[in-house]
Amino acid sequence: MSHYTQSALLTDLYEITMMQAYFSEGMNDRAVFEFFVRKLSPARNFLLAAGLEQVVEYLSGLRFDQDDIAWLRACGLFDPGFIESLRDFRFTGDVDAMPEGTVFFENEPVLRISAPLREAQLVESRIINLLHFQTLIASRAARCVIAAGGRQLIDFGLRRAHGAEAGLLSARASHLAGFDGTATAAAATLFGIPVFGTMAHSYIEAHDYETDAYCRFAHAFPKRTTLLIDTYDTEAAARQVVRLARSLRAQAIAISAVRIDSGDLDAVSRRVRAILDEGDCGDIRIFASGNLDEYALQDLIGKGAPIDGFGIGTRMNTSSDAPYLDCAYKLMEYAGQPRCKHSMGKVNLPGSKQVYRRRDGNGVMVGDMLALHDERIEGDPLLKPVMRDGALVAAPPGLQDIRRYAGSQLAGMPAGLRMLGPAQAYVPSVSPGLLDMARKLDAWLRAQSANDRARWEGEAV
Amino acid sequence: MSHYTQSALLTDLYEITMMQAYFSEGMNDRAVFEFFVRKLSPARNFLLAAGLEQVVEYLSGLRFDQDDIAWLRACGLFDPGFIESLRDFRFTGDVDAMPEGTVFFENEPVLRISAPLREAQLVESRIINLLHFQTLIASRAARCVIAAGGRQLIDFGLRRAHGAEAGLLSARASHLAGFDGTATAAAATLFGIPVFGTMAHSYIEAHDYETDAYCRFAHAFPKRTTLLIDTYDTEAAARQVVRLARSLRAQAIAISAVRIDSGDLDAVSRRVRAILDEGDCGDIRIFASGNLDEYALQDLIGKGAPIDGFGIGTRMNTSSDAPYLDCAYKLMEYAGQPRCKHSMGKVNLPGSKQVYRRRDGNGVMVGDMLALHDERIEGDPLLKPVMRDGALVAAPPGLQDIRRYAGSQLAGMPAGLRMLGPAQAYVPSVSPGLLDMARKLDAWLRAQSANDRARWEGEAV
Repeated sequence: MSHYTQSALLTDLYEITMMQAYFSEGMNDRAVFEFFVRKLSPARNFLLAAGLEQVVEYLSGLRFDQDDIAWLRACGLFDPGFIESLRDFRFTGDVDAMPEGTVFFENEPVLRISAPLREAQLVESRIINLLHFQTLIASRAARCVIAAGGRQLIDFGLRRAHGAEAGLLSARASHLAGFDGTATAAAATLFGIPVFGTMAHSYIEAHDYETDAYCRFAHAFPKRTTLLIDTYDTEAAARQVVRLARSLRAQAIAISAVRIDSGDLDAVSRRVRAILDEGDCGDIRIFASGNLDEYALQDLIGKGAPIDGFGIGTRMNTSSDAPYLDCAYKLMEYAGQPRCKHSMGKVNLPGSKQVYRRRDGNGVMVGDMLALHDERIEGDPLLKPVMRDGALVAAPPGLQDIRRYAGSQLAGMPAGLRMLGPAQAYVPSVSPGLLDMARKLDAWLRAQSANDRARWEGEAV
Repeated sequence: MSHYTQSALLTDLYEITMMQAYFSEGMNDRAVFEFFVRKLSPARNFLLAAGLEQVVEYLSGLRFDQDDIAWLRACGLFDPGFIESLRDFRFTGDVDAMPEGTVFFENEPVLRISAPLREAQLVESRIINLLHFQTLIASRAARCVIAAGGRQLIDFGLRRAHGAEAGLLSARASHLAGFDGTATAAAATLFGIPVFGTMAHSYIEAHDYETDAYCRFAHAFPKRTTLLIDTYDTEAAARQVVRLARSLRAQAIAISAVRIDSGDLDAVSRRVRAILDEGDCGDIRIFASGNLDEYALQDLIGKGAPIDGFGIGTRMNTSSDAPYLDCAYKLMEYAGQPRCKHSMGKVNLPGSKQVYRRRDGNGVMVGDMLALHDERIEGDPLLKPVMRDGALVAAPPGLQDIRRYAGSQLAGMPAGLRMLGPAQAYVPSVSPGLLDMARKLDAWLRAQSANDRARWEGEAV
């Protein structure tokens, strides 16, 4: 993934205006920013971290190229000296992050950047853009995986994903969360995800006879054929499939599955299963699709619908019931001083942080604690070193390793969090060290504000 | 926009498996497909067509490159002869479409492709992906534009848009719908959209004193400065701005606006306005942001909040209240024969169609009719020729022309459709010719199904 997705201008303009102001002020001390989700949607009991690999690619490749420089000159906002300084721009900072596939909760930093201020500021928009989207999709996909109880799940969502990158990254995020594959061919080439697909209704309709369509398709793909049977009359089509399967067996062509894309999937799948079984086609699987999500999966599986696999599209790829996360990338420390927005009546948690997770003897999570990054707390630290001085600490894990890790993370959640409905929230506690720092910062901010006003009342700037 | 967004593999695998089946069957007669939205969300009284320019770019540049060919070979599903045929693949078809910025309604074809079957099939996934997303965003953005009543609107949504392309295309779609500009720098370079941005809370927080931050930023950007005033204490910050504005005037530095990003925007903006006005800063505008959408705009403006401009992000860029359209790209005709999925109990509308719109003497829309493309009906035909034999009929309109056209389209809607709440649906009627064709096709499909079964019962295939 490169091109405009790698452009240094793929950011909010204010990141660059702030950089210029910092440049003219000579401000470039070390800044710590953290990405976190403030509050989970009522429709989510947990979130699954995803997108780190793309963040690392972005940070590693970040440059202002000739076109970027030319635009900055032409737009009339920036000083020549500042623009020149961008020619050598590189990301030289440190990154610590939860590995992709980690389950996390509100206010927990998922990624922490420690870098010279201008670098840490510029990357805000794209880091949020990447972590927000893949985490959003992986989290909804994980709910589908839990609801599917081991049945096959295929991502069907390119067409209504929000653009090309959303289609490709949601194929990745859903595979990471446990989906078996995707329908999107380019996601197979980019990420090595298993790819699936056979025919649309248009294929049937373009033929004068449905049976001709089936027969010819089976001959074109003798090893793996799924026939779509709901174009005209689903049960009649299932009976045609039975007859066809018999005659194709003699030619060593196997029909592997039928797909149903409309109607009452529970009722129709039962009738189709009966027709197939009575026709000695017990080996033909039933695959279903059409506006499905985790609730539909739970309902169909709960009723015992004989469906072996599901195509899940739009609702997963747009996270339709919660299409964004309440996430932020916030300055936590600058030049060694903790920093924070002062929200009246709320305790904010500044400083460079770590999340510690405790588990019981069976490996089930029993509590998280937010702490200062150098505070010693019981439990496993969730943020791990990813980059130091702009370089990777280790080769990033492969997608299959991430997928296995995500599976173990989902398995290690308390049962309540695995339910689709709202569970008692899993809220991290706050360490004594962090609380103490927050209180001290609050007092410092109040003193600074008072000093600031006093300066103003005494003198002109 | 090129690279993977232009890959021929940015499609569902089934488009390519169908192509191979058509290739082995020698089927490549002319096919007509149409893109349309089946039903509008209850949260939308109209939709605004967008995305055609990107569709045309995609169709014009569509090629299977070496990497695509190599992957098709390696994946083991496709025949060498078929793969070889793709080296010369070009889109050679015709495109008719509603110009971008056209208001449209349920079941109205927005785009019609007439092309050799394999070409028309392959492009399905990306055409839907492009038209769906920009139409989704333009439609929500248009609601914000109507609610804003002429106040400035800036797209703030890159960070929580669903990936890079979503961020960039939502900047385009919202500008087309009437937004004044975007915060996304790369959208300015790609589409020439006016770009805005100054500072985040982190800029204030990185300084030991808020006033120092303001003063230094104003010196760094003496021509255009918007100061963010809600980091610590909004009213105290507004008073600092007044004092600072006085001292900066002597240096010919003007503060153009303050931004408020949190709190009760109505109450806070009134207090800030009063402080600014009392401090002889009536020329400093107030800009507001933070989880805004058309409902918040209507509410704030209805109450008379003294806000001059708004930053609209997440809720517009994800179309959060209706994050997808119930849209489809369906085969309507093959080899001169109308085609259709047979949904029991529903009349489907096959064939190559046109939409005719009638207006009253004031130019206000009074009714649309779906008709056969060659039927003569009263009103203006909405689908216009865009490509013939794979080539553009005329240079595409510029974004500013599209924006003006969209404005006139929104102004020409009946008042009810411009309300934010649900209006009486504007439903196109169906022409006698089209109804007649649908009935004939229904009878033909029934006859074909009966023939198909009869063939099966008599013989083996």
